[in-house]
Formats: sequence, structure tokens, C-alpha cells
Amino acid sequence: MLKPEILDPQGQAVQRALPRLGFEGIGDVRQGKRFELEVEGPVDEAALARIHEMAETFLANTVIEDFTVKVEEQSK
Amino acid sequence: MLKPEILDPQGQAVQRALPRLGFEGIGDVRQGKRFELEVEGPVDEAALARIHEMAETFLANTVIEDFTVKVEEQSK
Repeated sequence: MLKPEILDPQGQAVQRALPRLGFEGIGDVRQGKRFELEVEGPVDEAALARIHEMAETFLANTVIEDFTVKVEEQSK
Repeated sequence: MLKPEILDPQGQAVQRALPRLGFEGIGDVRQGKRFELEVEGPVDEAALARIHEMAETFLANTVIEDFTVKVEEQSK
């Protein structure tokens, strides 16, 4: 996600459109990206550390974006 | 996220780039969008139903995208 201090014109456009479409009560909208990575092998601490490094150096632009890494069981 | 049967060229490009950058062991990458909505007032069932409708009719393109709605406590 864009850092809180970075302007998010896409999110703002969505927020402004909502009341027009009949959706009230949304104070703020921020738009961001998500990546789903399918990990081969066990998701242990070493794998997580690697994925964290991957996110930091490659997937996110840490000058303007924050990121979090979450582990989910494979669906299906 | 794009539905599993929909081609995701962005995700594929990321996946192909990872080994070149020294990151092995990622079987698949899918890229998608996320929206953070700040809800005014209680996030009760009525609010969640509204947000679900909002996602379905406006935020996601349900022809090619799946979506999930998750509730998180406000950070900070």
C-alpha cells in the first residue's frame, strides 16, 4: 500500500464516486497492490525471510509504499 | 484477484524475473488489487453487506476477478 503520507489519487477517485453510487459512510479509501506467491516447499523462517527480502527489494517500492507479508494456507 | 482461469501477464512477468534476481522456489505469482476502506461507524452486518455489494458492483470486475472482504482493526 502507498504510505499514509503519499497522495493516492486512485483511492480518492473511488471515495468520491461512492456517495454518487449510493454508498455512504466510507471515510477513506486507499488502493494498493497484492501479490500471491505460491511457495514450493515448507514456508519456514528462512523462506519467509527470503520472501520479505523479495518484497522489499523487488515487489514494493519502499520509497513510497509499505508492505506486509502474510502466510495463508493454500486454497483448494 | 484475477480468477484462476484468467491469464495474469503481470504475475507471470514477476515470476519469471525472480530466479534472475536470485529468488528460487516460487511456483506461481498472481498480482491483484486491494482496497482499504475506512468505515465510519460500527462495522456490523449491515455495513459488511453494503461493502460486499460495493465490492461486487464497483470495486471488482466480477467477470474476471474474485474478491474477498476482510475486517481489520484500525492500525494506530
